[in-house]
Amino acid sequence: MEKSGQSADRKDLKSMTIRELKTYAEEIRRKIIANAYNNGGHLASNLGVVELTIALHYVFDFPKDKLIFDVGHQCYTHKLLTGRADRFDTMRTEGGISGFPNREESEADAFIAGHAGTAIAAGIGYCTARDRLGENYEVVSVVGDGAMMNGLSLEAMFSSEEKPKNFIVVLNDNGMSISKNDSGLYAMLSRISVGGGYEKFKRAIRKIFGDSIVTRMLIAVRNFIKRLLGGHSYFDMIGLKYVGGVDGHNLKKLIKALQRVKRTERPVLFHVNTKKGKGYKNAEEQAERFHGVSKNFEDSVNAYSSALGEELCSMAEKDEKIFTVTAAMKDGTGLKVFAQKYPDRFADVGICEEFAATFAAGMAVGGLKPVVAIYSTFLQRAYDEILHDVCLQNLNVTFCLDRAGAVGADGCTHQGLYDLSYLCTMPNISVYAPRNTSEFKKMLQFAVAKSAPVAIRYPNGYEECLLEGQDVDVERWEYLTKQGEITVLAVGPRMCNRALEAAAKDQRLCVINARSVRPLDTALLDEIGNGPIVTMEENVLSGGFGEQVLGYYAEKGRKVKIRNMAFPTGNVPHAGVDAQLAKNGLTAEELLKIASEF
Amino acid sequence: MEKSGQSADRKDLKSMTIRELKTYAEEIRRKIIANAYNNGGHLASNLGVVELTIALHYVFDFPKDKLIFDVGHQCYTHKLLTGRADRFDTMRTEGGISGFPNREESEADAFIAGHAGTAIAAGIGYCTARDRLGENYEVVSVVGDGAMMNGLSLEAMFSSEEKPKNFIVVLNDNGMSISKNDSGLYAMLSRISVGGGYEKFKRAIRKIFGDSIVTRMLIAVRNFIKRLLGGHSYFDMIGLKYVGGVDGHNLKKLIKALQRVKRTERPVLFHVNTKKGKGYKNAEEQAERFHGVSKNFEDSVNAYSSALGEELCSMAEKDEKIFTVTAAMKDGTGLKVFAQKYPDRFADVGICEEFAATFAAGMAVGGLKPVVAIYSTFLQRAYDEILHDVCLQNLNVTFCLDRAGAVGADGCTHQGLYDLSYLCTMPNISVYAPRNTSEFKKMLQFAVAKSAPVAIRYPNGYEECLLEGQDVDVERWEYLTKQGEITVLAVGPRMCNRALEAAAKDQRLCVINARSVRPLDTALLDEIGNGPIVTMEENVLSGGFGEQVLGYYAEKGRKVKIRNMAFPTGNVPHAGVDAQLAKNGLTAEELLKIASEF
Repeated sequence: MEKSGQSADRKDLKSMTIRELKTYAEEIRRKIIANAYNNGGHLASNLGVVELTIALHYVFDFPKDKLIFDVGHQCYTHKLLTGRADRFDTMRTEGGISGFPNREESEADAFIAGHAGTAIAAGIGYCTARDRLGENYEVVSVVGDGAMMNGLSLEAMFSSEEKPKNFIVVLNDNGMSISKNDSGLYAMLSRISVGGGYEKFKRAIRKIFGDSIVTRMLIAVRNFIKRLLGGHSYFDMIGLKYVGGVDGHNLKKLIKALQRVKRTERPVLFHVNTKKGKGYKNAEEQAERFHGVSKNFEDSVNAYSSALGEELCSMAEKDEKIFTVTAAMKDGTGLKVFAQKYPDRFADVGICEEFAATFAAGMAVGGLKPVVAIYSTFLQRAYDEILHDVCLQNLNVTFCLDRAGAVGADGCTHQGLYDLSYLCTMPNISVYAPRNTSEFKKMLQFAVAKSAPVAIRYPNGYEECLLEGQDVDVERWEYLTKQGEITVLAVGPRMCNRALEAAAKDQRLCVINARSVRPLDTALLDEIGNGPIVTMEENVLSGGFGEQVLGYYAEKGRKVKIRNMAFPTGNVPHAGVDAQLAKNGLTAEELLKIASEF
Repeated sequence: MEKSGQSADRKDLKSMTIRELKTYAEEIRRKIIANAYNNGGHLASNLGVVELTIALHYVFDFPKDKLIFDVGHQCYTHKLLTGRADRFDTMRTEGGISGFPNREESEADAFIAGHAGTAIAAGIGYCTARDRLGENYEVVSVVGDGAMMNGLSLEAMFSSEEKPKNFIVVLNDNGMSISKNDSGLYAMLSRISVGGGYEKFKRAIRKIFGDSIVTRMLIAVRNFIKRLLGGHSYFDMIGLKYVGGVDGHNLKKLIKALQRVKRTERPVLFHVNTKKGKGYKNAEEQAERFHGVSKNFEDSVNAYSSALGEELCSMAEKDEKIFTVTAAMKDGTGLKVFAQKYPDRFADVGICEEFAATFAAGMAVGGLKPVVAIYSTFLQRAYDEILHDVCLQNLNVTFCLDRAGAVGADGCTHQGLYDLSYLCTMPNISVYAPRNTSEFKKMLQFAVAKSAPVAIRYPNGYEECLLEGQDVDVERWEYLTKQGEITVLAVGPRMCNRALEAAAKDQRLCVINARSVRPLDTALLDEIGNGPIVTMEENVLSGGFGEQVLGYYAEKGRKVKIRNMAFPTGNVPHAGVDAQLAKNGLTAEELLKIASEF
């Protein structure tokens, strides 16, 4: 892919009038909507920052200056302005441009994004390098109000009383994280943004004393006190000059304010109020639904997420102790129906995966049975909390890892290809992978009833292994075909289906649904222990299911012919799921080829 | 081990006078000093909270009420007060009590601790369970000012505007994290603790107007404004009533204040000022040095940490781009000498491992060559940042994982037994394990020169493989003996030494220093590919070095007889390192036994 930084679009921008910029903004908005309609992608978040991005490009000189997006699902305008307009319709497709910032794609993308909370930390790092190397550029980190509450953001914000010079944190405040949240920080920000206590103070004083000399005197005293107290906002305390809240859809005001900010050397928190979905009525009104959209804006059916909400609702009826937690993914994980039915037994903690895990551990110690539903890729943030707080204490917490395995269009930052490896190293936890939604429901019941940690991982979308289910003994594996010379141990619906497809062509193949990755079904492994065996999983090779199987036989001192089919690396770019699997050899054809070599 | 909650000590407490409590505090202090002198352990942090812990036990009813320590290195007084006085001298030794809170040890320990930032999140979880289940108890989370800045703490603090009732966060503020830190939050707290702007305001007003009616009027107006502004502290904003700053060594005041706090239903942040090392002059004056002590308070020599500081100082002289980062472990990681010599090229970010990793990624993108030194167990917190920000972008960041492998007396929460597994799943990163300090230094040079992520992991203490070093080609393995029938691939100094010990007794054993865990030395693996092979590592079995080796041969389609020696689980309790290794079969004897079975 051609690397590009600046484009005609960008250069033109600086000579445009405000009026022309406004027209341009509408043009961009139309492109974004059309593209999301055709390819799917993040819609509401991108519509919210069209003017902000234009203003930033108008005032600053990217890529000389550095523009760092947090999470990255608001970078479409930036891509259009930096030489990627002609490839815009290839976004999120194989070989096309990514839906997220990526340094390999363009030097205008100063830092990778996908997970939340990284931009301020990376920005401080950039500034540190710049100042040490005697270079001269501005660093701008754009962070949403949801990502601002993430632990990594907060660590970076509070890290030091002194922030680097020429560093601008743009707080893109749309008053709702990915889902609406109700956080303390948000409340703090919104109070500041409406003028804080000051307006309230003025109103109260006026009410009592009218527009008299007393009012004016008291206001003067108040300002004097404010100066004495050494600053007018919380951000001064952490080394950022607060500028805000600017209307994020008013280009003239944005540009003026940013020009002022650029002139000061002091680090600044630039607080912008934006509207998610701005300019597209449906998205404005249903920003959650239009946060990420499917092609043609169709309601996407996610079989496993729907099953989660449905089953938990039914289980919760009989078990008062069930409590569900998600991290800003109420819709995506399917917990919305649960939240509606049991609002008192549900918590959306915002983009705080670490807190979600330890909060759940606390609940479990206190006697509840928490179920934590988070996408596989985002749960990585809670690695240490799962290990230290949940697993070491052997607590009854159920983790539901949605979007496990290949994730398709979101690409490398979102792949759910590590969970089997890292979970299997942790003490006490069991790890299951259902092959269809009915098996998933049985596993949920089993997990919640088990006085120990359990993780259940399942893919995005609707693919199920369509073979009829038999009895489900969760920790025993299941023959999906009759026995045969070559045993295929397949994990999850996609792998089971591909193995069955191959078995239809090669009768020697015996397909087993290896639904419990930990513990392994050792009785069955002993049974098939003369080999040959092929393992199939949507996970990286290292430490995954296949290597667990190798380890089992090695420990037994048995030499078994085994081939592991898995992802050689988790760094898998955006493309369709099928293409991602094919590119990494996880197909029926590849299995047949391997079988032919035995 | 007998499980115990209450003891005579505790029950007596409530009937004691303040005078008696003071005497008791001194007695406890003497016990803590004596025990740390005999067994080593955390000294300064424990001396700082003697009165605070007594006051908490005086006012609350543990274990009915829940006392949750953050980090846990301040729980000695609590252990003495909860039936563990008679076993106090067994602390941190095999079969004895742990140096950290542990639910398996006593029901008075409400939650595990070891890593920072967990107590507030766990406390909120406890309260949620209590309120849902209609139970009735108080939850008290004790958090140091260093741990308060950790991302998990901050997520929990800012998680919600509304905190649960009957929840008390005790902020144990000793004005220094583990090392001194200079954080924004800390500045904020210290301003509040000295009375915030209020005292400053009063002083300023008095200076101008003396003790006149004007002063009194202005102060009244100020108070009126404060009420109008809706709260007098930042904590009100996040749903906690602020009470502080109480002298943490004044038992009378502490008890009185806590009794008041207990009477209110409102969630409270109880801010206590304590002195680390209180009552032991050396520890008060050198709190960092006396944070954790060795037996007899001897200066412990940590060979690898010393080598790190030394080598980086020498490298930094020639390479302007080297920048070092640690997370509240300047002394422990050996970076103190570097920080002294190059204060502008060093950052201690406090207990913020996540920030450390992404900050380093930002520096690397900006052109520096950051070296991040953090203990293996604590680096787990940055799992996602290492993967997402450093590895996916293939950045030149060097991670130095101190205290990797078995850690001895600190026990299960501190084991460095997971790093090989999780690092080897990540794209682009190389993972090395030196067998002695001279090899370590060569690896450091190699890592910093390499335009890609590298992790180097090494143990606590001074054990080196004493065999003379030959040339060091970092990514090739090294024969430590002549070739033989059975090849032993050993990772790290302790494993190399044990293998050499065995080889001295069984001439068939050929010992290889497998210093590069990723990439594997495939040329050498091909050479020895007829087996048998034994792998030895201080890591969990799952996904570790041994399974990497299995995976390599499986991929080649070679059936090789391999035995992996590793920790079956990372949940290894406190004991000496040798005992921990022995208990998990990582000894010369076990190797000889395995060899005899081939």
